[in-house]
Amino acid sequence: MTADKHGFSLTQLTSEKIDRVQRDPRFKKLTEEDVTFFKSILPEASVLEKKGLTQAEHAKYTCDWYNMYRAATEIILLPETTEQVSKILKYCNEQLIAVVPQSGNTSASGGSVPVFDEIIISTEKMNKIRKLDPLRGDLVCDAGCVLQDLDESLSQAGFQIPLDLPARHLCRIGGTISTNAGGIRQMRFGNLHGSVMGLEVVLPDGTIIDNLTTMRKDNSGYHLKNLFIGSEGTLGFVTGVSIATAQIRLAVNVFLIGLQSFDHVVQAYSLARRELPETIAAFEVLDTSTVQVVKGQDFQIPKGSPFPLSEKHPFYVVMETAGKDEEIEILRTDRLLKLLLEKEIILEGQIARTPDQVERFWSWRNNVPKAIVQTGPTSIHFDVSLELPLLYKLVEDAREWATKEGMIGRDIGAIYGYGHVGDGNMHLTIPALRDDEAIRIKIDDFVYEWVAEHKGSGSAEHGIGMMKAAYLSFSKSSTIISNMRKVKNLFDPNGIMNPYKMFPTKEEEEQGEIVRKRGQVGC
Amino acid sequence: MTADKHGFSLTQLTSEKIDRVQRDPRFKKLTEEDVTFFKSILPEASVLEKKGLTQAEHAKYTCDWYNMYRAATEIILLPETTEQVSKILKYCNEQLIAVVPQSGNTSASGGSVPVFDEIIISTEKMNKIRKLDPLRGDLVCDAGCVLQDLDESLSQAGFQIPLDLPARHLCRIGGTISTNAGGIRQMRFGNLHGSVMGLEVVLPDGTIIDNLTTMRKDNSGYHLKNLFIGSEGTLGFVTGVSIATAQIRLAVNVFLIGLQSFDHVVQAYSLARRELPETIAAFEVLDTSTVQVVKGQDFQIPKGSPFPLSEKHPFYVVMETAGKDEEIEILRTDRLLKLLLEKEIILEGQIARTPDQVERFWSWRNNVPKAIVQTGPTSIHFDVSLELPLLYKLVEDAREWATKEGMIGRDIGAIYGYGHVGDGNMHLTIPALRDDEAIRIKIDDFVYEWVAEHKGSGSAEHGIGMMKAAYLSFSKSSTIISNMRKVKNLFDPNGIMNPYKMFPTKEEEEQGEIVRKRGQVGC
Repeated sequence: MTADKHGFSLTQLTSEKIDRVQRDPRFKKLTEEDVTFFKSILPEASVLEKKGLTQAEHAKYTCDWYNMYRAATEIILLPETTEQVSKILKYCNEQLIAVVPQSGNTSASGGSVPVFDEIIISTEKMNKIRKLDPLRGDLVCDAGCVLQDLDESLSQAGFQIPLDLPARHLCRIGGTISTNAGGIRQMRFGNLHGSVMGLEVVLPDGTIIDNLTTMRKDNSGYHLKNLFIGSEGTLGFVTGVSIATAQIRLAVNVFLIGLQSFDHVVQAYSLARRELPETIAAFEVLDTSTVQVVKGQDFQIPKGSPFPLSEKHPFYVVMETAGKDEEIEILRTDRLLKLLLEKEIILEGQIARTPDQVERFWSWRNNVPKAIVQTGPTSIHFDVSLELPLLYKLVEDAREWATKEGMIGRDIGAIYGYGHVGDGNMHLTIPALRDDEAIRIKIDDFVYEWVAEHKGSGSAEHGIGMMKAAYLSFSKSSTIISNMRKVKNLFDPNGIMNPYKMFPTKEEEEQGEIVRKRGQVGC
Repeated sequence: MTADKHGFSLTQLTSEKIDRVQRDPRFKKLTEEDVTFFKSILPEASVLEKKGLTQAEHAKYTCDWYNMYRAATEIILLPETTEQVSKILKYCNEQLIAVVPQSGNTSASGGSVPVFDEIIISTEKMNKIRKLDPLRGDLVCDAGCVLQDLDESLSQAGFQIPLDLPARHLCRIGGTISTNAGGIRQMRFGNLHGSVMGLEVVLPDGTIIDNLTTMRKDNSGYHLKNLFIGSEGTLGFVTGVSIATAQIRLAVNVFLIGLQSFDHVVQAYSLARRELPETIAAFEVLDTSTVQVVKGQDFQIPKGSPFPLSEKHPFYVVMETAGKDEEIEILRTDRLLKLLLEKEIILEGQIARTPDQVERFWSWRNNVPKAIVQTGPTSIHFDVSLELPLLYKLVEDAREWATKEGMIGRDIGAIYGYGHVGDGNMHLTIPALRDDEAIRIKIDDFVYEWVAEHKGSGSAEHGIGMMKAAYLSFSKSSTIISNMRKVKNLFDPNGIMNPYKMFPTKEEEEQGEIVRKRGQVGC
């Protein structure tokens, strides 16, 4: 066990300990000649060799966000230009050297670190803004630009990246797009398939596909770019991005409301969307036990401050609206709160309006993941999509199942569910009481089977990566997976791009197909 | 020359008269056995044979929207189920029978009619709503549902299709998605890559890809659906659609404003977007000569009613906002109008608020295409995307060029430009004074070269189809086109799906590549 990036202790699956896949013997082991070649393309300082790095420096690239995986990568390359990426990939493709494209390395599914000894090509030195149109906020930039840096540049013109992630100070836009990241405010901004206008992508054979258009409408030919959005670096290497950004809206109102049941949460969501269709930006649910754990871990802002509502309500919602005009937003949000109370949809509610209040209200939601993982030596994470009425049923059924199995108190501390109601996206976090792979597998099996049987998706926004590859076929049919394999083979016939990820083994695929077909809920 | 669907006379390119492509001899000519097979799959009434149809009945399927093309198709099939489509396609693929998937047959680029004797598979009998979630407005339906019918069903729950096309009473949703249609209100609704959640697609070999999820977030595997959005039926046959709809907002305000120059139009657009970011829904430009032509053709509503503003302004804009609250929208739109006048960005402006006024204001924009085509025996249509400041420069340069060439008054009546400023999408319509293919080609060459040199797109929203296939490489590089060919070959190795469309010939591709590389405007 080692301390993870957040200071928690977690098991680590090293290259030697991973057993669901074996290293593909087709892939070449790195030689001195390969290193010499890379040094002919990049300056010496941009070729990081393991032998020249401290353990922490190496871990920055080879350990994932949850510190679950640790790779034995010998070399990390830091190109600055698309042409350099092209030359490197072409060489790797010819030499059969497996490659992991790496962006901010914040993947929550083990998608951005190598599994064995794949080399890493990081975009961290590709961080220039190429064009920023102050009129419409259209942005063209390198794939390695950090979201927060982009927001700083954009804000001067009144725009923002149409995506909000907690790790925005680390996430680089290329990886964000390669995983089709969602985040808290997707219900406002829409998804990246809608906002990305063009991409520059290097294919494994070195071909540069330059389609960095800033046209909002362009129906000249196939929309190839969309194939690379969410393909997790398995088809090509995104080097440049063109994206339609969003306008900053300053009048932010954050509701904190208490409710009697999840059914009331759904009613509140429905009413809020109808009443404030133009300005609703986030709608997040947490239950009483989740609030208690944040309180218990003393994460609230300011520290030790009381929870703003009564702590007796079964459910809480943090809802944000953001609009152009302060006065109008106050009028409209006050009206909604009154309506929610009058219709007895909510039991209690408050609205935060100053930046301090807003931060304080959001802290009860934003600190949930951190607070939960501190309650056990390790924890198990889920990121599922379900039909709205089923969203919390998964949490209830999981608790009932775990209780019946005698797991609560013996194997796990509790089961926490919280998430993006507005997008039908639930995050389940389960602190485990000891570091035992068998517990993880047992819970994975339960959750992914439940989601499959209810026609949900095992990954709403984090992607499949390494962590969920065994369960892809619980969400997608064999027909879809076989077509995915065809597309993979078309663009990456040697399979060098981010190998071992995304796709299940044949046995895993068959198992998932059986479970998926048990799906009980109609389309 | 024959009368087109709007009552105008246009040249018609029949199967015998098309000379840029030849019929592919690989494709089988339909036999009696083939017809017998189709009749074993479909009821007799769903197998329409040319010999049993009147000329008008045949033309409904075999002539395009502009009546430019007329095919010699022998049979039109009207399946009702996805399984029927699958059996038909599998047979056609095995027998090498070329197929045109047909939706509402409203393609404005000759994309939805056969070129030679391809058979037609129409979705007109696939028109059932499969699921409509009243809570979020998620819609799952057959590909053949007409947009207007869907809107009628959705409106009862307070929702609308997130797309607005003039031909909504004819357009079927499968074709709309297959061409990635845009429309007047895309700046409000976003594009279909953002709103389509899932598709059911039949591949040429009969494989049914069922991914009709209603999950707003689903990052489990490649986003294959996006490949079929905008591929114009050349990769597979869309049979089912899952789409996130939009909420109806009743407080509609329509501005009609007069401006001094296109630069002022851009300033007005910028200010309006900043002031009303939540509610702006459409921003359409027309110039003085366009207003005159609508007036001259007596298309205004009510008939003969005067233009609501002075007719001396060089430019006019029709701008729509739509919001939840009537009072607030009045307040905000009044404030914007005052600001536009105070800052001297506009010369004059009025706001329509009652349904009658709104219809009247819009009539000056919506009747533009009809009014223009009535001024000549035939007309030439463009649908291009450009950087915003270049949008009207194309119109000016085209007029200057045509004048210098002595074409105005001899070959063409005038050059009219109008379009969706909010999306950077300009429609150029040019009435020709006689029916002469050489005029069309000369103007096509000028416009597509101009657009290529200014890094625009030759098709913003209508798609490539047959009409623009020769010019695809003016908008897209050979690298992109060769990757498109690879994808085409992967999904449709026999090339039976909507052949002759979308792709240029090798010579056309080389010609376009030369022109495109002359592009002078930086990325």
